[in-house]
Amino acid sequence: MSLEQTLAELRRGTEEILLEEDLIKKLESGRKLRIKAGFDPTAPDLHLGHTVLINKMRQFQERGHTVIFLIGDFTGLIGDPSGKNATRPPLTPEQIEANAQTYKDQVFKILDPELTEVRFNSEWFSKIGAAGMIKLAAQHSVARMLERDDFKKRYKTNQPIAIHEFLYPLVQGYDSVALEADVELGGTDQKFNLLVGRELQKSEGQEPQVVMMVPLLEGLDGEKKMSKSLGNYVGITEAPGVMFQKIVSIPDSLMWRWFELLSFRSLEEIEQLKQDVANGTNPRDIKMALARELVARFHGEEAAANAHKGAGNVIKEGEVPEDTPEITLELEDQTELPISAIVNRAGLAANAAQTRDMLKNGRVKVDWEPVEATLKLGAGQYLIQAGKKKIAKVTLV
Amino acid sequence: MSLEQTLAELRRGTEEILLEEDLIKKLESGRKLRIKAGFDPTAPDLHLGHTVLINKMRQFQERGHTVIFLIGDFTGLIGDPSGKNATRPPLTPEQIEANAQTYKDQVFKILDPELTEVRFNSEWFSKIGAAGMIKLAAQHSVARMLERDDFKKRYKTNQPIAIHEFLYPLVQGYDSVALEADVELGGTDQKFNLLVGRELQKSEGQEPQVVMMVPLLEGLDGEKKMSKSLGNYVGITEAPGVMFQKIVSIPDSLMWRWFELLSFRSLEEIEQLKQDVANGTNPRDIKMALARELVARFHGEEAAANAHKGAGNVIKEGEVPEDTPEITLELEDQTELPISAIVNRAGLAANAAQTRDMLKNGRVKVDWEPVEATLKLGAGQYLIQAGKKKIAKVTLV
Repeated sequence: MSLEQTLAELRRGTEEILLEEDLIKKLESGRKLRIKAGFDPTAPDLHLGHTVLINKMRQFQERGHTVIFLIGDFTGLIGDPSGKNATRPPLTPEQIEANAQTYKDQVFKILDPELTEVRFNSEWFSKIGAAGMIKLAAQHSVARMLERDDFKKRYKTNQPIAIHEFLYPLVQGYDSVALEADVELGGTDQKFNLLVGRELQKSEGQEPQVVMMVPLLEGLDGEKKMSKSLGNYVGITEAPGVMFQKIVSIPDSLMWRWFELLSFRSLEEIEQLKQDVANGTNPRDIKMALARELVARFHGEEAAANAHKGAGNVIKEGEVPEDTPEITLELEDQTELPISAIVNRAGLAANAAQTRDMLKNGRVKVDWEPVEATLKLGAGQYLIQAGKKKIAKVTLV
Repeated sequence: MSLEQTLAELRRGTEEILLEEDLIKKLESGRKLRIKAGFDPTAPDLHLGHTVLINKMRQFQERGHTVIFLIGDFTGLIGDPSGKNATRPPLTPEQIEANAQTYKDQVFKILDPELTEVRFNSEWFSKIGAAGMIKLAAQHSVARMLERDDFKKRYKTNQPIAIHEFLYPLVQGYDSVALEADVELGGTDQKFNLLVGRELQKSEGQEPQVVMMVPLLEGLDGEKKMSKSLGNYVGITEAPGVMFQKIVSIPDSLMWRWFELLSFRSLEEIEQLKQDVANGTNPRDIKMALARELVARFHGEEAAANAHKGAGNVIKEGEVPEDTPEITLELEDQTELPISAIVNRAGLAANAAQTRDMLKNGRVKVDWEPVEATLKLGAGQYLIQAGKKKIAKVTLV
């Protein structure tokens, strides 16, 4: 594969590369590059949004480079040092070990374990001591730190910034020094911290890392960023049928974006699919192909084939399909949720307009009974069907 | 001794006590209080200015409290972490040990070794690790730190502040936590850092320390703060004769201030001396008494008596007195210094007016020869006499 082809693949879906000329130089060197990506030890439950970055790691791995899956356990072991956030107690080494195992189980669906270094940054931070932390803090100025957008805003609006928050970007940057990273991958929201790594490496006499920023993936709704709290996500451990159904439900407008960021199909193949749609292929078939690819990635080819088959099935009254998704929705401040919101949030309709349409036409059923559009449900468990093919066990809490 | 008397002594020469009501409460408790003062491990060569604070420590010691002579070796072991200051390399443990010994030799002229804890803050900072430093940094906000006068000024004028500079006040404050200090003594320029200790103790559930600030002592000239670089100092290891002569040479205006801050005489005794002067006693006799007290403190009673005697002696031509001080003056940018400046800076006259007077009357001699008021001297060694009793070996470099 030529350098140009490699670059085209690496640029695919990448928001920004700093500096691309450095990346070219590193690739041309023929060295086995060290590709770093850091992960929070508290949240090992990945969704497709997280895999955008892991897929980029895989691209490097496919080209023979060493991928470092860095678990930032050092700060996790501290917890919330201000003591204000009771929900962020320090993790024990056992919890971190367990979370690391969960991570591995998940990411090795995408990455080759043989070519992946799993590292923990407590390895070096347990050694540098308080003196090392002071030396690290000497590498950066207060004014530069206050240029970071979120710090600047908080400082100007008199929202307190605790001093240790200034240390965390340096901790992340020092990880790159310790690992001698050639490339660090991260989200666009990480730009400032990623660049700190470049600077620290320079001042340690290392060749600075290339920073590659991947975008935040849009969720099922096609608008907001995929996130657990918004409910617009596909978890990579979700059941094959659920995963399939969710992926097929995404709006057409989102389809090509997901192909770009989530599919392992080459850019040429994707171009061909676009032409097929232009020539009359049903976009739903294209989404099914994507759903099948992604389900196969996380659950294997057979499960994907079954999910594919199941997705076409019409649900018969009284017969709950085997892979019916179980979805929990939070009532939060309310005592009840409107049925329309439930259908939307459970991913049982392509969009709000379709939900309204189905409700108007009596095509939404709760526990097999058609319901009014004005229905509201309180805490409890419900079997909710929308149209002929979509059904979910919904728990309102 | 009543609480009122104790308070009067502790208030003597003290610039500010925060909070005095806390101090009263602590004194009333009858507990043995822990009195902390921190010293820089790089500069163990003390002058009378430093002893103002040590004298205050002694007052507590005389009342049965525990005095902690804290050597801040932790930051000394780091050196200048920005690497910009080549003149501040890290100290070795051996250098710190040697400096500590020099400190002890000097301060135990004032303090009782039996009632003094000599501690090093590396004791706890070598243990808390990088994680401990982060937790410490979480205890303070960036905005609060930027309220410190020098930081505020530097930030506003775009002078860089390295982030580790924000950690040093916390290091000093944490020392108070580790030592469970009841009182911390420091210079008025240390106010911000001293108060950080109070806050950290509070957030650790300790009773906050009382902060007592002593003034910076005016030097021999009676105007500027005593400092080595200004040459207006009396080193506590200087020879008895030199020390005596320097002290006797201070302007009358400074005399009572030095009594307040340096003499161990009680306030009542000093009041008596003031009355004596009002009733006609020569102020020079009062200064001689102070000189004798201070020389005795650092060199013993006999040396003080000899210095006292020597100071009264009329110098005979050709006979250099045994304890003639050797004084080195720097030419700095100039090639020559006027004789008037040399007489002033060598402490051979009480003030500039007296120098002018002696020069006009031919009472200043260089190498036993009377000289003109317009004489200038370049680099070299000179025996300089002013009036009948004062003489010095002056080296211009």
